[in-house]
This record gives sequence, C-alpha cells and structure tokens, in this order.
Amino acid sequence: MSEHHQRLPHPVGSMSTHRIEALADGVFAIVMTLLVFDLRVPEVPAAELPGALFSLWPKFLGYLTSFVLLGIYWTGHRNQFNFIKRADQNFHWLNILFFCAVCLVPFSTGLLSRYSGTWLTVAIYGLNLIAIGLMLFVLWTYATYRYHLVDPDLPPPVMRLARQRSLLAPAFYVVAILVGLINPRFSLIIFALVPLLYIFPGLQHFWTYLAHRG
Amino acid sequence: MSEHHQRLPHPVGSMSTHRIEALADGVFAIVMTLLVFDLRVPEVPAAELPGALFSLWPKFLGYLTSFVLLGIYWTGHRNQFNFIKRADQNFHWLNILFFCAVCLVPFSTGLLSRYSGTWLTVAIYGLNLIAIGLMLFVLWTYATYRYHLVDPDLPPPVMRLARQRSLLAPAFYVVAILVGLINPRFSLIIFALVPLLYIFPGLQHFWTYLAHRG
Amino acid sequence: MSEHHQRLPHPVGSMSTHRIEALADGVFAIVMTLLVFDLRVPEVPAAELPGALFSLWPKFLGYLTSFVLLGIYWTGHRNQFNFIKRADQNFHWLNILFFCAVCLVPFSTGLLSRYSGTWLTVAIYGLNLIAIGLMLFVLWTYATYRYHLVDPDLPPPVMRLARQRSLLAPAFYVVAILVGLINPRFSLIIFALVPLLYIFPGLQHFWTYLAHRG
Amino acid sequence: MSEHHQRLPHPVGSMSTHRIEALADGVFAIVMTLLVFDLRVPEVPAAELPGALFSLWPKFLGYLTSFVLLGIYWTGHRNQFNFIKRADQNFHWLNILFFCAVCLVPFSTGLLSRYSGTWLTVAIYGLNLIAIGLMLFVLWTYATYRYHLVDPDLPPPVMRLARQRSLLAPAFYVVAILVGLINPRFSLIIFALVPLLYIFPGLQHFWTYLAHRG
Repeated sequence: MSEHHQRLPHPVGSMSTHRIEALADGVFAIVMTLLVFDLRVPEVPAAELPGALFSLWPKFLGYLTSFVLLGIYWTGHRNQFNFIKRADQNFHWLNILFFCAVCLVPFSTGLLSRYSGTWLTVAIYGLNLIAIGLMLFVLWTYATYRYHLVDPDLPPPVMRLARQRSLLAPAFYVVAILVGLINPRFSLIIFALVPLLYIFPGLQHFWTYLAHRG
Repeated sequence: MSEHHQRLPHPVGSMSTHRIEALADGVFAIVMTLLVFDLRVPEVPAAELPGALFSLWPKFLGYLTSFVLLGIYWTGHRNQFNFIKRADQNFHWLNILFFCAVCLVPFSTGLLSRYSGTWLTVAIYGLNLIAIGLMLFVLWTYATYRYHLVDPDLPPPVMRLARQRSLLAPAFYVVAILVGLINPRFSLIIFALVPLLYIFPGLQHFWTYLAHRG
Repeated sequence: MSEHHQRLPHPVGSMSTHRIEALADGVFAIVMTLLVFDLRVPEVPAAELPGALFSLWPKFLGYLTSFVLLGIYWTGHRNQFNFIKRADQNFHWLNILFFCAVCLVPFSTGLLSRYSGTWLTVAIYGLNLIAIGLMLFVLWTYATYRYHLVDPDLPPPVMRLARQRSLLAPAFYVVAILVGLINPRFSLIIFALVPLLYIFPGLQHFWTYLAHRG
Repeated sequence: MSEHHQRLPHPVGSMSTHRIEALADGVFAIVMTLLVFDLRVPEVPAAELPGALFSLWPKFLGYLTSFVLLGIYWTGHRNQFNFIKRADQNFHWLNILFFCAVCLVPFSTGLLSRYSGTWLTVAIYGLNLIAIGLMLFVLWTYATYRYHLVDPDLPPPVMRLARQRSLLAPAFYVVAILVGLINPRFSLIIFALVPLLYIFPGLQHFWTYLAHRG
C-alpha cells in the first residue's frame, strides 16, 4: 500500500476488522449465556427437587454440547481473524449471515432438548450447525481468494488446511442427520463427540506445526 | 492540532469515539440475539411438532428480516465511524437516541409477527425503522457539519452520498407504510426487499468507486 | 514513570483501565436493551390491539426515561475515564458496586411502571438512581484523590466541577422522593426532567469551557 | 522474539489474548445482568406490594452475593491477564470451560434463592463456585507452566501467591458445603463472607507488595 493511501481515511472498500471482531465477541458471549436460559429453576415442593433436577439432564447435556460447539466456532472465527487483516462490504455481510446462524443455536438447542427423541429436531439442530460451519468456510474462502483480505505471507498449506477443517464438522453433522433416521439418539452421540476432534491435541499440533512451517 | 493539545488529556468537548463504538457493538449484538427470543420452542405433543414449527414461519421471517435490517444499520453506523474521528457531548447524545430506537426493534418485530395482517403493526415497525434511519442521517449530518468531527480529507461526494443513502431506506419505509393501507402484506414484501438495495453489489461498487475517487 | 517500570508487567496495584471500560460498555449495553423486555407484545384479539398498545404508555415512558438516565450515567462514567489513566484493586471494586446498582435499573423501572401511583416504587426507583449517582461521585473522588489515578495535568476546576455535577442528579432525586410523599406523579415529572439538565447545551458549554481553560 | 517473527502473522500456536479478554468481559457483563432477571416485579394489588417486595429479600441477597462473587472471579481473571501475554489453543479451550462454569451462576443462584433451606441447592451453588475457582487455578497453572504464556519477568512469588489465592475461595466453599449438612443457613453465611477476604485491604496490600517486590 502506498504511503499516500495510508494517510487517507480508510476507504469503505477496505476497512479494519476490529468492529466485526467486537460484534462477534458480543454475539457469542450472549448466545453462550442465553443457552442457560433453557435451564429453568424447577417450581416444585422441596422434597421433589432432586427428581426435578435430575429430569433436567437432557437440557443440561444440550447446554454443555452447544456451549462447547459454540466455543469451537468462536475459536474457528477467531483463528481466521488471526490472518484476516482487512474487510470489505461483502465480507461484512457474510459475517452478519454467520452471526444470524449462530444466534439460532439457543432455539435449535431448546428444540432438541425438549423433543430429543424426534428426528425432526435432530435435523434442525444439525442443519443449524451445518449452516454455521458452511458460513465459516465461505468466510475463509472469500477472505483468502487471491489473498485480498489476508496477509500476503499466509502459507498456502495453512489456508488449505483451515478450509478443510471448517468442512470437517459439517460433514459429521450430515452423517449425524442421516444416522438420526435410524435412531435419533445416535445423532446426539455424534453431536457430543464432534468437539473432541477439535480439542484432540494431535490434530492441533499438526495445525500449529503447519502454521509455523509456512 | 497543536502538539500542546495532543499532550493534554482530551478535553471533554473532543473525545475519542472508541467507547461509542464499543457500546454500539454491544447494543447491536444483544438486540440481534434477542430477536430469536421471539422464536419460542413450541410446547406440543411430539406428533404435532411439524405443524407447530411450520406455524412459526412468520416469526422466523420476521427474525430474518429484522436481523438483516439491523445488519444494514450496524454496517451504516460502522461505515460512518470509518470517517468520524472525534466525538463531542452532543454527538454522544445523538448516538444514545440512535441506540434507543435500535433497542425497540425486538418489540416492533414481535408486534409485526404476532399481528402480521394489521396496518397498525406495519406502521409501528416502519416508524421504528424510519426513526433509526433518520437518526443515522442526523448523526452523519452533525458529524460532517463544517467537518468538525470527521477527517478533513473526507471527499465531499462521499459525504453527500452517505447522507443520501441513509435517507434511501426511510423513504422506502414511508412507501411501505402507505402501501400497507391498501394491504399490509405488501408492506411486508417491501420491508423484506429493502436490504437487497444495500447488499446489491452494483450500488456498492459505485460507493467504493466514489470513496476512492475523492 | 521510569523507563524501567514501563518495561515491567504492570504491577497489580496499577493496572490499565481498558477492561473496566469494556465491562462498563457491556453492562450498559445489556441493561439498556433489557429495559425493552418490559414492553411485552400484547396477547389480545387484533381489534383490541390499539387499546392494548395505548395502555403500554407508562411502560414506554418508563423505558424512555430509564434509557436516557442510563445514557447520562454511561456518559458520566465515560467522561471520568477520559481523565482516569490507571486503576487499582479498590477502584476495581468500586466499579463493580457501581455496575451492581446499574444492573438493578430494569427491575426498579419495571416496578415503577407497574405501580406508578405508589410512593414506595417512586422511592425505590429514586434510591436506585441515587445509588448510581453516589457511586459515580465516589469513583471520581477516589480516582482524583491526590491525583493517584488521574492525569497529573487534570485542571482542578474540572475535577471539582465533575464532582459537583455527579451530585446534582442525586440531589434532584432526593427532592423527587420527598415530593412523591405529596403526589407520586410529581416525582415522575422530576425523573423525566432531570436528563434535560445534562443535555441542555448551556451547562455543557460551561463544562467544555472549563475543560479547555485549565 | 526476533524481528522476523514480529512481522509474520501470529502463528495459531501463539495468539494475542485480546479476544479471550473481550469474550470474558462480554460473558461477565451478561451473566451479572441476568442475575437481576430473577428479581421479578411482583404482580399483586398495590396494597400488598410492601409485603411482596419484602418477601423478595432472599432473591435480593442472592443477587448481591453472586454479583460480588462474579466480581471477584472477573477481577481474578483480569489480574491473570495482567501477566498473561500470549494464548495457545489449549488455553483457549480452558477459558471456554471457565466461561461455561461462569454462565451457570444465574441458574445455581436462582436455585439457591428459590430453595434456600435445602442442602442440595447449597451443594450445587458451592460446586458451581468451586468449578469456577478451580478453572481459574488451572488457567493460571497452565499459563505459568515454564512461563510459556506469561511475561518472563513475572516474579515467582506473585506466580505462587496467585495460585494459592485462587484455591482460597474453593477451600471455603468446600467447608460451606460440609457445614450445610448441619444447617444450610450456615453455608449461606460463608458464601456471603468469602468476598470480604478478597476485598479486605490487608490481604490486598500484601499482594500489591509482593507484586512490587519481585
């Protein structure tokens, strides 16, 4: 960028990413917190409290799973912005669509824990997660296209690996939805296990290794 | 600005915009997330769930429309702060009034999706959007008046175009309210189509072009 | 500050104010947005909607008043941090107590608009506002004591004026609570008028003038 | 760090802590604000309002205690980030688990104030607080292990003291849970008194003293 450009106000077509990141952090913080709203304090006589609390376990499991899945997506979004240095209007809009899908998670989680044996709710929850994952993929693909929003030093294997990784979870969710046709409980197990793929240190070291190698 | 001024603490009459932007991001993040609160998990027997979910479609559409409209206004506000470099007390207050209108969107959206065939709710929703748009116009007009809060390098055509653009949506909403007198459904179509004007790449390239030309 | 100190990690006894400001912006954004939660979409036949909406006016007025009052307090807090450059643990805690009072505003506003003719709710609302105002006074007094958290260049008249201004609103609220013993409606008028004192340009120019004179 | 490294994009294995801090501030701001949601405006005839408000006192006390306890944990988290200069993926995940425990506080507080005489709710509240405290301990232990995320200048006594301090509160909560087996009311007193340990200036000066001595 020429020195002349740097001293002009940033043109609208090339903005800093600071406020997208701030909105992202706000949206994720609220969505994560609202998940707990589904855990309502039971209104029963004190003697029946243990049973009433125990019957909350599907909601509690739904809370934990969605919290961790949101954690994965937040981490994924944040990792992208480690490399993304600029934003343009289209990128702005793609982020808003991403947030739009993220904000639906408390609803689809609530649906899943209320009707946990139904394929329909499994499918809606899975589609919601797929939508978030695909939006992350679109964000990264758009940002890295001809390096127009990312650092020119970004190593191609990191770029490729990040793209593949963002498709990994949606692929599992497609499987989860299909398996749910046989038994919706199996889907729940897949939803709960996917996070392990991302937290599992092996994959992560590979990722870090690539990030350093470039 | 003289060097002497730069080393004094910022006088109250000329403050950085950092915290207005932080409050804006917080308010938009929460308002966008609260929109989903209107999508309540139905409490019906599992067999009736498909029908119950299907009957949520006006709420879902309302959610999507308001989310995207809020996205437009957030983007508009953020675009302004690309050029706005300072704030004073009046500008502060104008922003608080802007947020005040933004925070009413979940209420007016809920009203519209609960009573979607009524002109009254169309008018309230439209007036809420008009209020937000006019506040954006006022913010920009105030900030650019004699360049007192914006960068002196801001090209006049950008300043003018931004002013005009912020009046574009309110003009459509006036039409939407009037058309609603004939049939409220028509208003809903206009509300849902206005975002396309802003996302449509043609207009946007024009905008970017002007931003670079100045 | 010696160069040696600047290169050490900030000791706990002297921290940057960045995260207090971030928490403040988050708390105010949420509290302002939650105020609207009291405006519930009426559940009536469409024909009765105009009447049902009209009967929301005390809640709507409560929303507006509290929003603007919170805007004043947010502005007051933000103005202080224009001058406050450091934080210590005590200052941290005083801020948390300040937020604790701020977070009660949706509750006291809800109480006031639900029971608007009762002195008790007027008194609770007034006490809540007084608590916020006094905390602002305490924050400023603590921060400016021997200049230990503020810029050493802060002119004494600004320091004094800011202290006096933060006591101005609480004084009016004491009057409002007392007047409420005669007629609670009078209190509501005072609550709604106080913001004008802060927005009124005259006072503000005086403030700016002093800020520049120091 | 070599100059060459500083100019490369931060590798994923060594990221800035900025967005973790932003998410933390968002989560704490929302959780603190949501605590008030448990204080519902009573729906009674105006004449019965004083009694209805008075019967809210256990909820009010629960609000205050949890607000202050969250304040302590926020301060603890923030104090850690005074010294933590980098983040890696594992640290990221540990923070998300920390937030997961923090977000449960409105639920466990609601449970405690609804069923305040029951040991079960005392135990759940205590376990929630212990989980938060232990996560803080884990965060600090992980970050300071071989100094890999903290400033190399961090004095060992500060590191050790911070580790011990983060175990102080959980130890008291274990006592509170055990004492609750005798009488749950005693537990409430311990919960309410623990904050004083952290606010008490003596301990704090000791902390500051150590922070300066290193």
